[in-house]
Formats: sequence, C-alpha cells, structure tokens
Amino acid sequence: MTSDNSVEMIYIHSMTAFDDSYIIRPNPQDPRLTERVSGIDQTGQKIDTSVTVERAMTIFLNGQEIVTAMTIGDYPEYLATGYLLNQHMLLPNDVVTGVDYDEELAVVVVRTKRKTNYEKKLKKKVQTSGCAQGTVFGDLMEALENVSLPKATLRTSWLYALTHKINTTPSLYLEAGAIHGCVLAQEDRPLVYMEDVGRHNAVDKIAGWMFKERVKPEDKIFYTTGRLTSEMVIKCVRMGIPILISRSGFTAWGVELARKANLTLIGRARGKRFVALAGEDRIVFDQDLAAVEEESSKHRRKAAMHDD
Amino acid sequence: MTSDNSVEMIYIHSMTAFDDSYIIRPNPQDPRLTERVSGIDQTGQKIDTSVTVERAMTIFLNGQEIVTAMTIGDYPEYLATGYLLNQHMLLPNDVVTGVDYDEELAVVVVRTKRKTNYEKKLKKKVQTSGCAQGTVFGDLMEALENVSLPKATLRTSWLYALTHKINTTPSLYLEAGAIHGCVLAQEDRPLVYMEDVGRHNAVDKIAGWMFKERVKPEDKIFYTTGRLTSEMVIKCVRMGIPILISRSGFTAWGVELARKANLTLIGRARGKRFVALAGEDRIVFDQDLAAVEEESSKHRRKAAMHDD
Repeated sequence: MTSDNSVEMIYIHSMTAFDDSYIIRPNPQDPRLTERVSGIDQTGQKIDTSVTVERAMTIFLNGQEIVTAMTIGDYPEYLATGYLLNQHMLLPNDVVTGVDYDEELAVVVVRTKRKTNYEKKLKKKVQTSGCAQGTVFGDLMEALENVSLPKATLRTSWLYALTHKINTTPSLYLEAGAIHGCVLAQEDRPLVYMEDVGRHNAVDKIAGWMFKERVKPEDKIFYTTGRLTSEMVIKCVRMGIPILISRSGFTAWGVELARKANLTLIGRARGKRFVALAGEDRIVFDQDLAAVEEESSKHRRKAAMHDD
Repeated sequence: MTSDNSVEMIYIHSMTAFDDSYIIRPNPQDPRLTERVSGIDQTGQKIDTSVTVERAMTIFLNGQEIVTAMTIGDYPEYLATGYLLNQHMLLPNDVVTGVDYDEELAVVVVRTKRKTNYEKKLKKKVQTSGCAQGTVFGDLMEALENVSLPKATLRTSWLYALTHKINTTPSLYLEAGAIHGCVLAQEDRPLVYMEDVGRHNAVDKIAGWMFKERVKPEDKIFYTTGRLTSEMVIKCVRMGIPILISRSGFTAWGVELARKANLTLIGRARGKRFVALAGEDRIVFDQDLAAVEEESSKHRRKAAMHDD
C-alpha cells in the first residue's frame, strides 16, 4: 500500500482486539484532546462531562501566512500539508523540505523547494457550503476539469463490513461528541481514521498523511460522517479517490460534480440502507442483505449526536 | 416583539395547524430548494430522491466584494445583511440605504450611508471550527470584551415545548436532509426558523431578519441543530441573545467563551435530557420530567440524519 516501511511498523504497533487494520485511529484517551467540565443536567444536578478541545493553529507556506484553522490539534503536520494540497497551494510533485510545528506558538510552517507566492489567491476566498474553509472555489472547479478517476470496485460486502468496523471503533466522538470523522479505507479495511472539530480538517489530515507516506489513491475508499456537498466531492476528486461514502445526505451540486468527475457517490449509509447517486457502475452487489444488521440503538444514538 | 407592523401581518398569514407562533418557517414545498435526482438503493433498484440545492451567492458591501457563500438561496437579503453584521462590517447603528438582489448574477449588494472599506480585513481570515466562515477571529473576540448579556429566564417547560414544536415542524431537513436549522424563539414559541446548507448561513439569515425588523434580542432564545463551538457562541453573543440551546455537543472553547460572556449554554438537548455548561443561573426548573416524552424513533432518525 505504501513504499515506506515505517508505515508497516506503525501498522503492527496499532493492532488491537477490535480491528487489526488501522494504521492510525482515534486515541480518545489522549488527555490533550478532551477537557472535563462541570455543569448541570436536566434535573438541576451537578455533573461532570467531557468536551472536545478546539485550538487555533496557523499554517504558513514558506514565508507566507496562509490561514488559521480551529482544530483539535492532534496531527498539525498532516493538517498543514493536507490543507495546502487540497487548496492547490502545495502541488503533488512539490518537494517538501520541512514541516516545522511550534506547539507554543501554535504555528506550522511547511517549506518547499519551489518558491511560492499566494498573496493573490488569499485575497479572494469563497465560503463553501456549511463547513466552509474559505476555499478558492475557481481553483477547485479547475481541479475537476481534467480529472479522470480510475476504474475501481466497491463490493457491498466491503461497505457493510467497513461501516460496522468504523461505528464500533473507540473514538473521540463517543467520548465527547461534537466532532467529525473521516476514514481512508481499502476494500473492507479501515486504514486511517482521523477526527476533528472541523470535518474538512479531518479530510485534510488524511490528505497530508497520504502525501507523506506516498499512498496511492486508486484502490482506496473514502468515508466521511459529513454531508456530501460540492466541497467534499471536489476534495475527494482532488485526492484521486474514486469512491466516497457518507452516512449523511447529499446536496444537488455535490451530486452534479460527482457525476461530472465519475466519482462513485454513496450517501445515507446506515444499517442496511444506502443510496448511490453517481458512479453506480463501480458497485458490485455481493452482500446478502438478510445477513446485515440494522444499526443498533447505540449506533443510532451515536449518529444522532454526530450532527454538525 | 417588534415595532414594525408588517411583522404582525406576516405573523397572521403564516398561522398553521401544527403551530401558530411562526413568523417565518421552512417551506419544504418550495420547488427552488430541492431537486429530484435518480440513483440506486442498497438492492440495486432504481430510485428517485430529493436532495437539497446549494448555490453560490456573492455578497457585496457598497462597492466591495466581500465573500461568496454557498446557500440554498431562500433569503438572500437577510443572509447578506446578517453575514455583514456578524462579521462586524455592518454596524448595528448603520443606515442601510438599500439591499439589491440580482438572481441571475447571484449577487446581493448591501448599501450603507456610511462609507465602508474592508480591504484590510478581507486579507486576513481565520478558519473557525468545523463550519468555518473565514471569520475575522480577532474581531470576533473583541466583540466579547465589552459585552454584558441581560438578565433573562429560561423555564425548562419552555425548553421542552420549544424543542417538541421545532422537531415536528415540516422542514427541508425532513424533505431532503443535508441541511442545518436555527430557530429564534421567545419563551415557548418558535418565531423564525431558518434552514441552510451552511449552519452559519442559517444564523446569519436570522440576524439579518432581526436587524431588518428591529427585533430586540434580550428576551429571545436561540436554538441551533449545530454544535456549540467558539464561533457559534460568539455569534450568539454578538446578536445579544442571552440563551443558546443545541441538540448537539460542545467544544471546550465554546464553553469557556460562553462563561466569559455569561451566556446560558445548553447542549445535547434531546427528549428529556440536556446539559447546561454556562449561565446555569438563568434556568428555572418548572417542568415535571415524568410528563416529558423521550424522542420518538422518528425524531431519533431525524436527528441521526442531521449530521453535518
């Protein structure tokens, strides 16, 4: 899956009882990612509860300040690299000479061999749907122009196995809520599961990881808890991943762009159910639906809290 | 509630069987807001389904292009005005001389008596959590400095009545999903219910409506389907509304800012349950919990799909 041996090492180290395919998965026990706070519940009784942290982090590309993102802060280097890639400020063939993170200053600097200047680009930002990143939209649309996503297959048996594994993986979401999750998968195996207060941060962290580890996208599947908007579709296409799955719904523009780019777009994937609105030809229906469980009430509740 | 008689007129016209307190509520039958698309379901059968539209709309303040937002496009004038207010580019005492919407060009121009120039501000944007709007964060923080939210009361009987009414109101969400909702309420009465693909757009549309109708915020309650992040808290404080309720969770920074501003912050409000993490002293526990129904499976499902 990657030419880098260090990945194989991490792979072995992260093997656990509940699933053995993760290279990176959430660490809900990391004390830096949640905070205990006191309050009251509906009966007026004092309670303690966990809430997700949210930190400002500023991304520089060489000498230029690009953006300040609000993040849980667990993978600053991947976030910075992936953000710049998905904004087309870092190019796939760029040579990254260093990524320096200063925790105290909350700053990440990505350095490239190529000289960069995105002053003009920074001036004009577009707020994309819902969870905007101030993306330069014209550029994102360009990304779709010359793209052709590879042939690939999605077996429905993989889809059901994947969503079941993802739903039962311990996560910050289950610990504190108010967070989004994205998963990079191959066949029925989740490989990298990132969470963040910004769903686009979670995508960008995966993009940054793929760049660093030189992971090829053609045989991968991308899963998100977030909606299938134009921006999510564009990011997935830009990453070169041919299949995008979500437990959430679609926007009309998301569907239109996915059809244009020949991306397989599956939404409302819960329990037995899903809807495919683009690239349906990649789907192979090999799963006996009678053997698929509906989501348990625990997962329904989980989904119910997963609402932003 | 407002000094403007026209509001009373609308109030009367929008009276319906399911609830009589709405001045503005979603119109899921509006053919401009959803699109029918074809696809396949988990059995491979062809299906037709509704998806939410998502349109680019560019906001100008006088001669200056400020931002392009992705929106369902139902209240462009309120969205533009509210966005500029919440960005502190339009000031509460500004005289708005006109708001012109050109549907074909997808442009809204807000004109003020005061000359404006926000070139410098536009240069430096901060991506706030999750659903960022590229907000100028320093300015938003300033808004919290000299704020003092008024005394107010939230009866738990209002809270349960409100959430029940909101959950049973026909909405685009129920029709097509992938959308956020915000409600401005007074006591147990929902007044204005806005939906949008961007949750911040929904907030901004309410802010724009309040500005236009000169609605006072002190005795209002703000409800959102979205998470209680720093940005949501800051927007609510800026709008001067002392009580913020969400069915979703909290971030640590959202809690911290709410405490600083003395905002009553209630999250995870579902069925009988809720958690208050700031401004608890405004809550009056007058509801007999035995009489409150848990959310029906229909509402659980509703919540479950409301996930972005």
